[in-house]
Amino acid sequence: METKNAIIQRIMILREEMKECGIQYYIIPTSDFHNSEYVNDYFKCREFMSGFTGSNGNLLVTRDAAYLWTDGRYFIQAAKELEGSGIFLMKMGVEGVPTLVEYLGAHIKEGECIGFDGRVIRCIFGMQLEKLVYDKKCTLKYDVDLVGKFWANRPSLPCEEIRILSDELTGMSTTNKLKQVRDEMKKLGADFHVLTKLDDLMWLFNIRGKDIPCNPVALCYGIITQDKAYVYLQSKSITDTLKQYFTELEITVKEYNTFYEDVKEFLGKNKQEEGCVLLDKNEISYSLYQLAKGNLKILWHRNPSQMFKAVKNKTELEHMREVYRKDSVAVTRFIYEMKMKLQNETEQLGTEFSVAQRMDRLRMETEDFLDLSFETISAYKENAAMMHYTATEEQCKQLEAKGFLLVDSGGQYLGGTTDVTRTIALGPLSDEERRDFTLVATGMLRLLNLKFLKGCTGRNLDIIARQPLWQIGKDYKCGTGHGIGYILNVHEGPQRISVGYQKDVEETPFETGMVVTDEPGVYVEGAYGIRTENVLVCQEAEKNTDGQFLCFENLTWVPIDLDAIDVNYLTEEDRAMLNAYHKQVYERIAIDLNEQEAQWLKAYTREV
Amino acid sequence: METKNAIIQRIMILREEMKECGIQYYIIPTSDFHNSEYVNDYFKCREFMSGFTGSNGNLLVTRDAAYLWTDGRYFIQAAKELEGSGIFLMKMGVEGVPTLVEYLGAHIKEGECIGFDGRVIRCIFGMQLEKLVYDKKCTLKYDVDLVGKFWANRPSLPCEEIRILSDELTGMSTTNKLKQVRDEMKKLGADFHVLTKLDDLMWLFNIRGKDIPCNPVALCYGIITQDKAYVYLQSKSITDTLKQYFTELEITVKEYNTFYEDVKEFLGKNKQEEGCVLLDKNEISYSLYQLAKGNLKILWHRNPSQMFKAVKNKTELEHMREVYRKDSVAVTRFIYEMKMKLQNETEQLGTEFSVAQRMDRLRMETEDFLDLSFETISAYKENAAMMHYTATEEQCKQLEAKGFLLVDSGGQYLGGTTDVTRTIALGPLSDEERRDFTLVATGMLRLLNLKFLKGCTGRNLDIIARQPLWQIGKDYKCGTGHGIGYILNVHEGPQRISVGYQKDVEETPFETGMVVTDEPGVYVEGAYGIRTENVLVCQEAEKNTDGQFLCFENLTWVPIDLDAIDVNYLTEEDRAMLNAYHKQVYERIAIDLNEQEAQWLKAYTREV
Repeated sequence: METKNAIIQRIMILREEMKECGIQYYIIPTSDFHNSEYVNDYFKCREFMSGFTGSNGNLLVTRDAAYLWTDGRYFIQAAKELEGSGIFLMKMGVEGVPTLVEYLGAHIKEGECIGFDGRVIRCIFGMQLEKLVYDKKCTLKYDVDLVGKFWANRPSLPCEEIRILSDELTGMSTTNKLKQVRDEMKKLGADFHVLTKLDDLMWLFNIRGKDIPCNPVALCYGIITQDKAYVYLQSKSITDTLKQYFTELEITVKEYNTFYEDVKEFLGKNKQEEGCVLLDKNEISYSLYQLAKGNLKILWHRNPSQMFKAVKNKTELEHMREVYRKDSVAVTRFIYEMKMKLQNETEQLGTEFSVAQRMDRLRMETEDFLDLSFETISAYKENAAMMHYTATEEQCKQLEAKGFLLVDSGGQYLGGTTDVTRTIALGPLSDEERRDFTLVATGMLRLLNLKFLKGCTGRNLDIIARQPLWQIGKDYKCGTGHGIGYILNVHEGPQRISVGYQKDVEETPFETGMVVTDEPGVYVEGAYGIRTENVLVCQEAEKNTDGQFLCFENLTWVPIDLDAIDVNYLTEEDRAMLNAYHKQVYERIAIDLNEQEAQWLKAYTREV
Repeated sequence: METKNAIIQRIMILREEMKECGIQYYIIPTSDFHNSEYVNDYFKCREFMSGFTGSNGNLLVTRDAAYLWTDGRYFIQAAKELEGSGIFLMKMGVEGVPTLVEYLGAHIKEGECIGFDGRVIRCIFGMQLEKLVYDKKCTLKYDVDLVGKFWANRPSLPCEEIRILSDELTGMSTTNKLKQVRDEMKKLGADFHVLTKLDDLMWLFNIRGKDIPCNPVALCYGIITQDKAYVYLQSKSITDTLKQYFTELEITVKEYNTFYEDVKEFLGKNKQEEGCVLLDKNEISYSLYQLAKGNLKILWHRNPSQMFKAVKNKTELEHMREVYRKDSVAVTRFIYEMKMKLQNETEQLGTEFSVAQRMDRLRMETEDFLDLSFETISAYKENAAMMHYTATEEQCKQLEAKGFLLVDSGGQYLGGTTDVTRTIALGPLSDEERRDFTLVATGMLRLLNLKFLKGCTGRNLDIIARQPLWQIGKDYKCGTGHGIGYILNVHEGPQRISVGYQKDVEETPFETGMVVTDEPGVYVEGAYGIRTENVLVCQEAEKNTDGQFLCFENLTWVPIDLDAIDVNYLTEEDRAMLNAYHKQVYERIAIDLNEQEAQWLKAYTREV
């Protein structure tokens, strides 16, 4: 973590730079050139400037103040990390808190200037700012990276090895995927398609990289037409094998750094021709939009690859089932070890950090393991109230034989990406803790067992997981579930399960093959945090005159801590669901455990 | 009902008219000049041309075919009524069925012309057609009422008496309501506001009419500025009292028929001035838009009155509570009479029509009764599978001592508008009927007892009522609930409870004071129909660090037929909710019943 003085000083320097450029408001988002959720250190300007380490946040620096907007997952953590920096925390989604654009709208004066690096600002956000400065008679300056100018020890752009995935693993060749995308382009009437989103590109080209920690992506761009395809990669990462691979696919490999110029020239060249370019305004950068604008007709549309990627094919699902089972074995073994340690009074329980390391070790020992899918969250007691808390060796809690330990972790395997959370009772719990744990488990299981009509989006379903908590006047300030990649990013769209309504935000109905997490929780600031997370696949249920029904197939087979269940809060149906789930956990996991572990699991998955 | 030959002939005449005007596609919607859901006979062109009597449907006549689009409530009824007319039924919302605009898009050829009467077509729909003809290089003809040209015995425009409501009844004077609207206009930056929606106008001016059966509205328009207000009414309906009323309110009364000219002149006059007019593109007609266009700046926004009207004030709610209680007494008495008749084997049960008349009579005898709020639906057995079936004296089923009778009815009272459905067992039921009845009751009660976070819209909540049916693979093809007026239309927006996602359709979060129906059902074509409907008011529940929670207050106190409940399908919680509901029904209703009735109700609301 940065010292507060360093932060204060950096903001002062930035203000000098702003003055020089005539900028009154400078925006530093959390993103890279590809609108990635998690970014390589090279792109961590917002963290460098604020000290806030969360994965989502926009920093606004004005001539005399600074503000950080972040979401409910990070309210507690951000408040802690911003303390003493003089940066105000703006809690997104909280009543009465303006959005960044609303804030600017209320404060900016005629003739003032908003500045940002347009390569790391999403097109759609830039367009909002465009409208704002038009209304307010102000200006935008989007071709400046002011932080880059004085960030002395800025890490270099990452350029790691690139791996080609076999068709046996992906279930579909790039040739066929390109055909899918081109068919969709034809249907939409698009002649060109410019792709900047890394996981869409990895999916399309059946390659994987390591340029973002835990996210197996390589820095990459793509341009697709009906008969040509271009991939932009850093020369250093282009091996002969890779060259040959793309040659065979009839895809032209070009240098990553030339992409912006190519777009200008490529789309510019076609100025005289009739044509239409498909761009996703939620994904491309504002700078790219500025280049593409005015030449061809722009068709704003979601990247076709996004939906294709979201719907997992049979091969992918087959691999995932086995990978999730093995991953569940690792997590179950971790819980077993913790429970054993608790029985032995002389044994040290360890720290948040040391048990996270143990969890990671168990996963690393699992077949086909490649990497973690995100940094393991191991949070004890009140630390677990911070949804995305990270313990470090230097700063972490010592575990004791009481309260809850929350472990949220996942792996990248050759065969899938996992994500699972279990909250483990380390000893005595309060009645509230047991009640909340039971209601969280209830919500998770009810969603897992839901049957619903085709056409539903996550906003229809969310209440099923949330209702047990709402009935006692509790809520969790985040969505219930996110999509998940296949040997790709742990967060993936477009489907999600959440409750909040936002005008103009497009919802995606569930389709067979879509994978989604199911992770209700309770977060009590300063006290405790509970989350129980499984991963589900949308599957077909019956079809009749009333329509096509859908349901979920469960992928995660880790027990839910019975030590923390208070049966008084279970309805008969909830109890039956819990018992049915545990029966299956034993049947699927025990085979990979030794006798002692299996015996323990038998008791640990007993009927209640 | 029209004879099929008459329908076929009218369509032939229409085609002649179309040819004369060079129109290839003629659209006949179900609406009036005010986008009313239910219309006076004068406006029933679509019924005149198709024979379909439902409240929602668009007829498209081409040179060689005709198509009627309607929604799930009317699929069965429309199929029956269209039989032999040669008109194809287009089932809205069913997979693979194109919308009217999609159909036109797929069939229209360059140079062809789409025609309609722009005064009865919504602006937003007209704009869609505008875009279509632009893309397809076709034309629109919107200033023709082709049906009016040959409809010989067309009823005349209605012009009934207008009533002024006291502040004691409305809880807010027109002066204060105008201030509310003007404040909102100021906030939005609108200088003019043109209002065409009848219930908004009735609410604003605290008047009621009788120009649409069961809808206490008068044909009316309004124009509001910061310092002036104009009301357009038919001269014949303007009494001295009414004149004085508006004079005191400083509202200028003008003749209804001059409105369109006034808009042209009024907004035209201000051509040179700066100014902005607030229009609701979901409510105003396409013709009005054409007049308003090009003069002032248009601010597209929901009528401010819509939200104000939706949130019932304390006075309105107080009146409603008592009106709903009395209305519940009438319905309970109706059920009592039916059950008594069943005990007496010699007594005739009557017909669908005769029992509907009895229901209406019981309601008419209730204090403060003004009118029915819609034509009573009394549907026996398979007829109840048609959600909005109407029995007539000539065509109705004889009731027998078996199966279900569904009665959906409501009243207009000086103190509120009611809407309630009960399904009554007349004798033996099949297991499926009992199961479905029980699950419908379960869904209704779960929604009634729900607690939820502020910010939820009806799309978040719908699944609570629908889930018990979804779990057995059944669905109902309509929403779960609609808003309801105060001495006004039985259907009112903007809030609703439904599941379907439509891009670009704005959702409205629940607010304290909003009233909504809760009416899940099961409709099995050719067999039976079940619906149980209560009316709820959104109220505040606790507020804590997790946010403001909301819940529902129940207004309807009619028992749910225990003869049709199969306790095997009730969870313990559902059973407790049913018993708690029935306990309250008795406590609130018995006081208005005679001894015999009360005794019966005691048994009829017993614990199960």
